[in-house]
Formats: sequence, C-alpha cells, structure tokens
Amino acid sequence: MGKGGKPDGGDGFEEASRDGCEQENMAAWLLGINTLKIQPFKLPNLGPRDVLVRLKAVGICGSDVHHFKNMRCADFVVKEPMVIGHECAGIVEEVGSEVKHLVPGDSVALEPGINCKRCELCKQGRYNLCPKMKFFGSPPTHGCLANQVVHPGDLCFKLPNNVSLEEGAMCEPLSVGVHACRRANVGPETNVLVMGAGPIGLVTLLAARAFEAPRIVVADVNDHRLSVAKALGAHEIVKVSTNIEVSEEVAKIKEAMGTPVDVSFDCAGFNKTMATALSATGSGGKVCLVGMGQRELTLPLTSATAREVDVIGIFRYKNTWPLCLELLRSNKVDVKPLITHRFGFSQKEMEKAFETSAGGGNAIKVMFNL
Amino acid sequence: MGKGGKPDGGDGFEEASRDGCEQENMAAWLLGINTLKIQPFKLPNLGPRDVLVRLKAVGICGSDVHHFKNMRCADFVVKEPMVIGHECAGIVEEVGSEVKHLVPGDSVALEPGINCKRCELCKQGRYNLCPKMKFFGSPPTHGCLANQVVHPGDLCFKLPNNVSLEEGAMCEPLSVGVHACRRANVGPETNVLVMGAGPIGLVTLLAARAFEAPRIVVADVNDHRLSVAKALGAHEIVKVSTNIEVSEEVAKIKEAMGTPVDVSFDCAGFNKTMATALSATGSGGKVCLVGMGQRELTLPLTSATAREVDVIGIFRYKNTWPLCLELLRSNKVDVKPLITHRFGFSQKEMEKAFETSAGGGNAIKVMFNL
Amino acid sequence: MGKGGKPDGGDGFEEASRDGCEQENMAAWLLGINTLKIQPFKLPNLGPRDVLVRLKAVGICGSDVHHFKNMRCADFVVKEPMVIGHECAGIVEEVGSEVKHLVPGDSVALEPGINCKRCELCKQGRYNLCPKMKFFGSPPTHGCLANQVVHPGDLCFKLPNNVSLEEGAMCEPLSVGVHACRRANVGPETNVLVMGAGPIGLVTLLAARAFEAPRIVVADVNDHRLSVAKALGAHEIVKVSTNIEVSEEVAKIKEAMGTPVDVSFDCAGFNKTMATALSATGSGGKVCLVGMGQRELTLPLTSATAREVDVIGIFRYKNTWPLCLELLRSNKVDVKPLITHRFGFSQKEMEKAFETSAGGGNAIKVMFNL
Amino acid sequence: MGKGGKPDGGDGFEEASRDGCEQENMAAWLLGINTLKIQPFKLPNLGPRDVLVRLKAVGICGSDVHHFKNMRCADFVVKEPMVIGHECAGIVEEVGSEVKHLVPGDSVALEPGINCKRCELCKQGRYNLCPKMKFFGSPPTHGCLANQVVHPGDLCFKLPNNVSLEEGAMCEPLSVGVHACRRANVGPETNVLVMGAGPIGLVTLLAARAFEAPRIVVADVNDHRLSVAKALGAHEIVKVSTNIEVSEEVAKIKEAMGTPVDVSFDCAGFNKTMATALSATGSGGKVCLVGMGQRELTLPLTSATAREVDVIGIFRYKNTWPLCLELLRSNKVDVKPLITHRFGFSQKEMEKAFETSAGGGNAIKVMFNL
Repeated sequence: MGKGGKPDGGDGFEEASRDGCEQENMAAWLLGINTLKIQPFKLPNLGPRDVLVRLKAVGICGSDVHHFKNMRCADFVVKEPMVIGHECAGIVEEVGSEVKHLVPGDSVALEPGINCKRCELCKQGRYNLCPKMKFFGSPPTHGCLANQVVHPGDLCFKLPNNVSLEEGAMCEPLSVGVHACRRANVGPETNVLVMGAGPIGLVTLLAARAFEAPRIVVADVNDHRLSVAKALGAHEIVKVSTNIEVSEEVAKIKEAMGTPVDVSFDCAGFNKTMATALSATGSGGKVCLVGMGQRELTLPLTSATAREVDVIGIFRYKNTWPLCLELLRSNKVDVKPLITHRFGFSQKEMEKAFETSAGGGNAIKVMFNL
Repeated sequence: MGKGGKPDGGDGFEEASRDGCEQENMAAWLLGINTLKIQPFKLPNLGPRDVLVRLKAVGICGSDVHHFKNMRCADFVVKEPMVIGHECAGIVEEVGSEVKHLVPGDSVALEPGINCKRCELCKQGRYNLCPKMKFFGSPPTHGCLANQVVHPGDLCFKLPNNVSLEEGAMCEPLSVGVHACRRANVGPETNVLVMGAGPIGLVTLLAARAFEAPRIVVADVNDHRLSVAKALGAHEIVKVSTNIEVSEEVAKIKEAMGTPVDVSFDCAGFNKTMATALSATGSGGKVCLVGMGQRELTLPLTSATAREVDVIGIFRYKNTWPLCLELLRSNKVDVKPLITHRFGFSQKEMEKAFETSAGGGNAIKVMFNL
Repeated sequence: MGKGGKPDGGDGFEEASRDGCEQENMAAWLLGINTLKIQPFKLPNLGPRDVLVRLKAVGICGSDVHHFKNMRCADFVVKEPMVIGHECAGIVEEVGSEVKHLVPGDSVALEPGINCKRCELCKQGRYNLCPKMKFFGSPPTHGCLANQVVHPGDLCFKLPNNVSLEEGAMCEPLSVGVHACRRANVGPETNVLVMGAGPIGLVTLLAARAFEAPRIVVADVNDHRLSVAKALGAHEIVKVSTNIEVSEEVAKIKEAMGTPVDVSFDCAGFNKTMATALSATGSGGKVCLVGMGQRELTLPLTSATAREVDVIGIFRYKNTWPLCLELLRSNKVDVKPLITHRFGFSQKEMEKAFETSAGGGNAIKVMFNL
Repeated sequence: MGKGGKPDGGDGFEEASRDGCEQENMAAWLLGINTLKIQPFKLPNLGPRDVLVRLKAVGICGSDVHHFKNMRCADFVVKEPMVIGHECAGIVEEVGSEVKHLVPGDSVALEPGINCKRCELCKQGRYNLCPKMKFFGSPPTHGCLANQVVHPGDLCFKLPNNVSLEEGAMCEPLSVGVHACRRANVGPETNVLVMGAGPIGLVTLLAARAFEAPRIVVADVNDHRLSVAKALGAHEIVKVSTNIEVSEEVAKIKEAMGTPVDVSFDCAGFNKTMATALSATGSGGKVCLVGMGQRELTLPLTSATAREVDVIGIFRYKNTWPLCLELLRSNKVDVKPLITHRFGFSQKEMEKAFETSAGGGNAIKVMFNL
C-alpha cells in the first residue's frame, strides 16, 4: 500500500492522529497494468494544519495514463496498489485547529505535492525539486481520485466566486505552462514557439498568452489540435510532418513568426521537435523542454549553444496556484475549452474515462465529476 | 582576400582614411589546407578611433588549428587567403585623434571582435552574438598573426605594469573561461565539475578558481593533463576513460566532489562527456557546453531537464578584458604555466609552431614571440 | 550654439560630410528664460548611417517646460541657444548609404538619445547611463522641435501601418513607463501602486497594464487626474491629500489594493509620496522613483529596507521603441487619450503650447503638429 | 514569559511532547532596562525533528545591547521577561527521532530564526521575511544565552573539524555580511565601499573579500576601527569626519578607490554616511543599507536614482550557514580577530560583558564561553 494512506501518514512530515468514520471513502486504486478498481481508501487523521476535502472534479493527466498502462512513468514505478490522480478540486469538509484561511463549505483547488520544507532546495524556494516530495498519485504516494482526501491547508487554495471546481482542477495542468513561462521569463517582448498542441502544449500556449507574449506560433502534426490552438489564441499555426526535413520545418516556422523566436517550448520531446526548436530559436534565446520527452535525444545541440540558446528544464511547478486562480478569475485564461470529456466516478465510467484519455483522438482533458 | 585588409577597412563599420608606409608589414596568410605563408599584409588607414599596434605575443588557438587543417571551423569557411590568429598583445605605435586612453609605447591586449553596435543584440549588451561581428582570423576577417594591426582603440586594453605581453595575449583564452563562469553564475557557493583538461578546460578551471568556486573537480582521460589541472588548483582530479560506463564515471565524480555538483562545464563536447556532465549535476544546477562540441550529440537530456538542470550555451565572451587583466594583476589567476611552447615569427618556426599545437601531446598553449 | 548643430556634428561620434539645401529648416530655439523663438536651424550633413526626417508630431515634456522656465532641468544647464524638444515622429526624407531598413516616405518614431557605444556602460547594454550621451534638447545637444532633423538610422523606428505619427511621438513618454516596469520586473503577479497621475504616472499605469499587472491602484490629490487614470484602466483610484498623515494614506491604499503591494512607482517624488510608497509596499517588494523628484528627500527608509523593500532608480530608457510600437500596434496600449491639446508650429502657437503645458490643469500631453 | 519557553513550544510550529530533567538549565533573562539575571529556563520537550544543544559560545550583538538598554530594538519591544542572545554554537546532547545528520557530541552552529514554512514568502525562498518568524532573543521569542536550548535540527549545522565553537557562533554576524554581498551581487568585478567599520562593517568587509571584490575601501571616523579594517584586508581606508562636507568625503573615497564604486554598504545608517554612499556610487551601482539605521533619513536620493543607483534593503539572512562554515573551513574568512573580549557565564561576568559591549571603544565582538 502506498505511504500516503498509512495511519501515520498525513503529509508524512507531520505527526497526525486522526481516525474514525471515513469508512465509506472510496478511491480509484491502480492494482496492475490496465487495472483500476474503486475500493475503500482509509484516510489519515486530520492534523492541526490539515484540511479534509470532498473531491468534486478530478482530471486525468498523461502521467496517470502512463501509470495505468505501464505501472510506471519515467523513473517512478508503481510497486504497490496506489490511489491514482493528482489534478483536483473539491469542497472543504473539515479544517484542522490551526487552519485559519478556510472554513467548511469553501471550494478549493489542491496543489498536489507536499515538500519536506527543510532541505536546501526547499529553503531556497525551489521546492518542486525537493527529493523528499510526496506527490498525489506519484508512487508511493496515494493520489486524489477519491471521494475525500486529507491535505495540508497551505496547499488548498480557495476558489474565487467565478471559478468553477472543474476550472479549479485545471490549475494543475495550467501550472505546468505557468512554471514554464516563468522559468523562460516570457513577457510582452517574448516571441514564442510551441512545438506540440497536446494538453501540455495548449496550457503552455494559454500561459504564454497570459504572460503577454506578443506572438505565439504553435506547430503540430495534427490538424484538429492546431485548430484548437488557433481557437485558444495562437497567432499562427504551422502544420509539421514526420517526413519533412527539420530545415524545412524551421523555415516554415520562421516565416510564420516573422521575427526571431525568443523562446521555444518543446511540448512533445522527440528528436525532431527538439531539433526544430533548437534551430528555430534566435541567438540568445531559450528552449524549454516541457513534460516528458524521449529518454535519449539526438540533437544538433552545439550549433544552438554556440548561439547562446539555453535549454531550460522544467519539473512540475511551484507557487503557481495563486497566479492560476487570478488568471482564471480575471478571464485572462479560459481553460474550459480544454475539457472535452466528462465522466462520473463509477467503475464503468472510470474505465471509459481512461480509455478515452489514452485513446488520444480529439480528447484533450478528461474530467471526473464526483 | 579577407575583408579586414581592404583599404576601406578599419573595423569595417567606420570610415577610415589612412595609407602609407606599412609596406613591410608581414603576416601569416592561410592559403590552403596546411598551407601558411608569411607574406606582406597591407593595413587599412588609421581612423580617428583606431590604434596601430605592433604585435609582440600571439597564441595559437584550437580554432586556428582547425582553420589550418580544414580551411574551416564549425560553420566558418575560409574561402579566400586570410591572415590567421586572434590571441594577441603588443605595443601601441600610433593612436587616432580621438583615442585618449592610450599613447604610443603602451602595452596592450587586444579583444579580437568588432561588433556592429547597432543591432538589437549589441544594444542589449550581448554583443558577442552580433550577427555582423568581425573577428580576427574568423573568415572573412583577417587575424593578428602579423607584425602590425590596426584595431579600434576601445578594444585595446592597457596592460598593468606587472602583466607581461604573453599574459596579455592569454586574456583571450582566459576570457572564454570567464564568460562561461559568468553565464553559469559561479561564485563562492558553486561546486564545479570541469569535463576535459585541455586548454579550454584549464582556463575554465582558472576562472572558476577566480570566481571562488569552493570545490572544483576536473575529469579527463589523460594523466598529464590531469596533473596540470591539479597543479593549477583543481581540488580533485578524476581519471575517466572511453570504455567505462557513464554511470560509473558519474559515481567516481560524485565521490570526488563529496557534495552536489552545482555547475558542470563540458569542455570536450562528446556524447559521453556531456552525458556525464548532465547526470553528475545536481537538481537545479547547470551544464555549460564550452567550446566546440560534436555537431550532433546523443544525450539523456530529459532526465536532466526534469531535474531542472539547465544547459547553458557559450559563445566567445563579452566585456572580459578588464576583469582578466585585473585577475592577472592581482595574481588571482596565473596563466604562465599554460604557455608550454614558444616560437619566433619566421616561416620555419611558424610551421613548427602549428605542428606542435596540432600534435596535442603535452602542448597546452603555443605562443609566438614577434 | 548647441553641439548637435555644428557642421561636424551628426551624432557627434561619427564623421559626417553632408551639406546643402536645408536653409529653410526652422526650429524652436530656447534663447533664455521663457524665451523661445522659431529660427533657422542648419542641419549637419547626412552620414552614411543617418536619416533625414521631416518632423510631423512633437510632444512637450515636463523637462522641456523646466528648460523653458529655468534654462535648466536637474543638473542640465542651458548655456547657449538650443533647439528644444525630444518627443517626436516624422517622415523619412533621405537615408544614408548604409541605411537599409528605411526608405524615403516611411513614418518613423525617433529615439532621442545617441550613446557613445564604446564606454563600459554602453558595452554592458546599459546605454541609457552612457556619460557621453547626446540627447535631443538636453543641453548642449539640440532637440527636435524643428521641421527636419538628421538622426542615426538605428534610432529611427518604422511605424506599423495602424500607428499614427502622434502615437509614434508618444513612444518617448511611454518608454519611461516601460523602462520602469522592466526594471521593477512587473508581470502578471505584480500588484502595482502608482503615486501620482500626471503624465509620467499615466504612462507608468499604461505600461503596468501592458505588463499584465493584475491589480493597479493609482493615488493622486487631483480628482480629474484620478478620473483619467480610472478611464485608462486603473483598477482602483485613491484620493490622497497633503494634510493627511502618511499612515492614514497607506491604510486607504492597502484597503484599495486588498493584497500586498509588490511594486510602487513614485511618479511625484515628494517626501510624502515616497514615504507613502515605502510604507505601503510589502516585504520583499520594490519602490521605483520615476521622473525627477525633490532634490532632497526625508524618508523612513530604514523601516522599508529592513523589510527588504528595494528602491530602484530609473533614468530614461533603453531598447524600448520596438516594444512600444508593438504595444501600440496590438492595441495593448492606447496613448491617444493622453493627448489633450494640439498646436501648430508657429511662434504664436508655440507660445500658447508651452503656456498650456506649463499651466497644468487638465492638460496631459501637449502635441505639435508640424 | 516569552513564547519559546512554553511547554508547547519547540519551534512553535510543530507539536512537541518532551519534558523532564532540564531543571538546572540556566539562562540570561532580560527583566527590565539594564537588568539581566541568570535564572532557570525550562526547555520545551524535544520534538522528533529537534536537537538539544549545550551552548558553548554565545556572542553579544548590537541588538542585544539595544534590548538590554531600552527593552526594544527598532519595532521589537520586550514586554515580558525574555532570555537574550542569538549568536551561538554548542554541542549536541540529544537528537529527535527524525534527525539523521547529527549525533550527540557533534559541534554545531545554530541559525537563530525559525520560519513558518507555509507563507508565500517562505515558499518563495525569502524566509528571512516570514512575518511569523520566531527568532532567538527577538521578543517574544526566547534567546540562546543559556546552558541549553532545544532547536530544530535543520537549523543546527555541524562544524567542520577545523572550525571552533567561537567561530561557529560568529556565523551569525558573518551571515549578515554574506547576505548583504549576495543581495548586492558582489563578485570579482565589484568594487566595494564600506561605510562604517563597526562589527557589521567588518563582517561585510570579510564577506566582500570572500566574494572576491577586487577593491574594497572602508571609511570610518575612528582610527582604531580603520586599522582593524586594514588588518582584515581592506585595500584602502579613509578617515571621515562629522564636520566635513559630503562632497569632500566623496572625493577622498573616489580617490582611494581609483575606479568607480560598484556597490556601497552603509553599515552606519546616518544621513551623512548614506548621502556619502549614494554620491560615491557609480552609475548603475547599488547602495545597501546594512543593519539598523536612523529611523528617518534625509537624503539626496533623486540624484542617485537618476543614475540608476539602486538602494537595496537587507534583513538578517537566509541559507547562509553552509557558506559561512565553508568560508571558515577553507580559511577564506578569519573571524577570530573580531573576538576582542571573552567572559564566563556568571551574573558578574555577564554584567561586565554587556558593559564592555555597550561601551564601544575597542571592543568588537564580546563572547561568552559557557
């Protein structure tokens, strides 16, 4: 059993001592490859700084699908039954004695990772890199596709009145785009190329728009995805193809941009997308690899670094929820078009939901309504 | 003939109107593969902001050897006879009417690149990336292995009394290390790994020491080079080998460092050195590729970027001469041990000098005394 | 006579060799306190990198009024007759042989300062701090309130089709706001306080909006100015008063902001506005003093710096024209409401224009149409 | 009674549940103005992440003297009896169950502030600005002039073998200099002016040397202090005086520096020292106000900010202990000359120690050996 569910759990860094009546709490347990079952999930006791949340909206992420299909994602291996899911929002049911910013009934979006707060990286403010991070649905920590979870109050962010629970759950993928734009320092002078118009590419596009990138070109092999990118605000879209030379693609992208590319986000992570990003980016620019790419990449790196094009790495996010909620509140970002499919929280619906998400096609974000 | 030598030349961005008595000026002309000849070199007129310098010390760089052997270096192709050389220092013989900081007789080190000063990159202070850069001995611009050159006064830096002309010429390679350390933000808290103990690796080591890196580990395949690195101040040296796994090398490096690597400089640019650097560097750290690497690199990039290890590119340097001279003046850096061979400026000596530099072995820096 | 007009002039850093038929060129000469006369203004020859521009729109700045009223502004003293003015746009009439990005007939906005390009600050990209700067209408350099001027081509920026000449002239004041927002690192997470809703305060507000500040509060003593600020997009306005305590003003501002102030721009520069800005800004925030404040300020500085509130200085701008034109082109900034008065270029109109600008009242930007 | 000593204490953010045999623990209680008494000090229970430390070296800081003399320091007011002291090192006696990096017998230096870890500033890595900070000897939190304290393990840093307990205690004042140098970005190109050669000025000097400032000028009114600064490595010292004009002092400082001042640290905080620092600093430079200055300062701020001289605020430090210990271990910093007086931990010695520290004169750091 994953660690998060043990009675001594909570965030695993704090003592906790709750027990009781949550016997009916049900969760989506990943038991083996392609095997998800809704089963009881015993919660840890509510610590003084914790919040008990009844989940209402939980999205499926590509990494959830990886876990579902392979019992692993990158270096994270699922060795024991684990509750899946990490994109979520819900309603506060109970708060610990020291939680002052929330009351039962509040709608909240949950930041899924609990960092140790005491290592050097945490102290430096780069807590997303904390080696002791406990992250919803990343083995061995249980996730949030459940009726209820106990979570630290400082990671539960109250939704503004005009932000729905589904939008709250979308703070998680949006955070990836926001963190990428922050690290790449996107602003009103940054012309942006996005390679790949899947869910990660699209949230990066949305974030780049919110950070006021004056010109954003999105490239993908798929017409439907490109049309979504266009609808979401890409200034230009470029159809690329696996059997065209990098130099040709770069020429098309440069023409579509019309001005040097300052920052490229590779949201696909293939040899070719990365090579295209490296070549298309102007001297002194940056290429960010967002999301999980191929393990090994063969790249014309030297010709890029010799133009001082830096390659920026991204891992999850930090301090993004307040900004995401502000962007949603002020309508600078609209994540609703990304939610293409909705399912209830039953065994049958769950199976269909994961099939839909894994199937690709026109599905962008698959959302559970609990 | 390269552009720098045309009568309308000077820095090519300014008008110039000098002519006269430099008929005896001789220079090292690269005429073809492995073919260097000392022949007359007509200088442009001295513009109001220019300085006429009699060269006294000129070093040979790896890129000079590349040009000599292949008539090209990376994307720079020698199409016409060109004077070679770009690491130099000399004595001021004449100054233009607007040059106030120098007088004839001053010893000066020359920064070899003349930027356009009017493009966006120049205006932003990233002049090393100027697309119109005219750089000594980089085709089609003539170099400085000559008796005399005309150069803009603001690129001629007066040597402190205790800095020799040879040390002045060493400002050029040292600048590469300084620029790398600056871009990677090396300071008293930055534990540094240097992959490769060739000339570039060694100047990077010297710069990292000057920037107060508390712990520097240098790795190379060659025992002699490692012993030089040790003598120059590496805290630990690690012998690596082409037939050992990356993971094993990384383990040795980590053990030698004893604390996470914050910045790795890959001064070799092979698949393996870069893979080692990427894996050895701690979360949130940086890998800098210094100098010219293989055109295409196959790398475990994703696992590095997923720890937010950034890959920083470096191209030459900017604003480094004043700092280099200060480091030499204050003895924080001693470049003298790098100068392993000296030659005079005759046809025969020149040929031996290039053979020595190309031959590798124990040669680090080969220097002409003119 | 100011230096810019000497026949050996041009930008004063380059040789020039033009002469000819500009005998009818007329300009506004500042001859003494409150004494401006339209008189002939001989232009320097057109150098190879220069452009001859026929001015069409020239705005009056507070510093022009200072010069007009006092023959000085801060440390700049007008000792000889000088052509006034530095906010301008016009039509290209002739280009030098090396100017490739412009042709006669193009509409251009002019960046008014010519830096030396060779000092350390220029090389580092902080050219606005160049000690040898020659700046339109800043003694002893002639300005641009004239029929024609000769200006370096790289400081002439072509207007997009949908940007008018008057808007082009407004790039100059807008640049002040843009540079302030850049130095203070304003972005989608920066809650901004603007003290003062005069022309500088208003362009800072516009720039902060363009940089996506989520919440901007503007404070002023004047209801009309506040109403303009509100119309230009301030989220909240706060009426302050000279006879109310700082602590009370701070309380009002904090209430209006509703969240900590991250960056305050003091666009007034009085003891009280600065004290209010310092106290209102949250821990770790920044206060920028924009424009010219009182020579000596008495401030509760210690209690601000002890919260790591930094005080950022601003001098003019650098590299702002391309961004300003993009902001105008994309309608992210609308400067038209700032232009409250227009005058022709005759002796009589000019006098009225300066009276209007000096008179304050509801005048924001007074513009000449030539 | 101060909060730190309450049985529910620990760091006040974590639950703790220790009790027992520390009845003999004695501490220096500040009971009123000029009234310090050694009295029993009951420790909180040892939590799982806590460490029990027997203090061996405790320094007296200027703020301790402020508390002693005035029952306040800046905005911090002592309202209840409080144990004083915050510069300390000692021997680990017991560790909590989760503390893995220390064992009883280890020598440790203690970082005195416990931050909340959950507010926005903590999450951003600016934990020194945490509004809920509990800091040794800053009311209402008890200090460390005691036989023993209980402290979080992650704030106890093991001393290298060659670093003494007294040097360990000096990490606290040294941290102030280190944090100032970090925030001002001092490096091998930063020419530094230090105004004031008291304890804060001297640790700033030491830190600036460790950060490789090429040239450091120290100014003070006191010859003895200047001679100490010189002995500690100031490149030049300048005697200033209260009855000399700022402009004259600036001229002397500029002459002593011989090159533009890049960063000035005002470690005195008077109108005149700050005015001198502002005027002496070159365009684009920085002035840091270190330590507590006068509440209100009258300054020629405008002429400094108009040269983009920024004023940087400093509050305590963050993440400095590892660097301080490395600097001490490697002998890049020697703090021993700063310790001018030593006292035992008895009522009588304590009184003499505080008299000595308050008396100024040649006392720099007064240290208790417990």
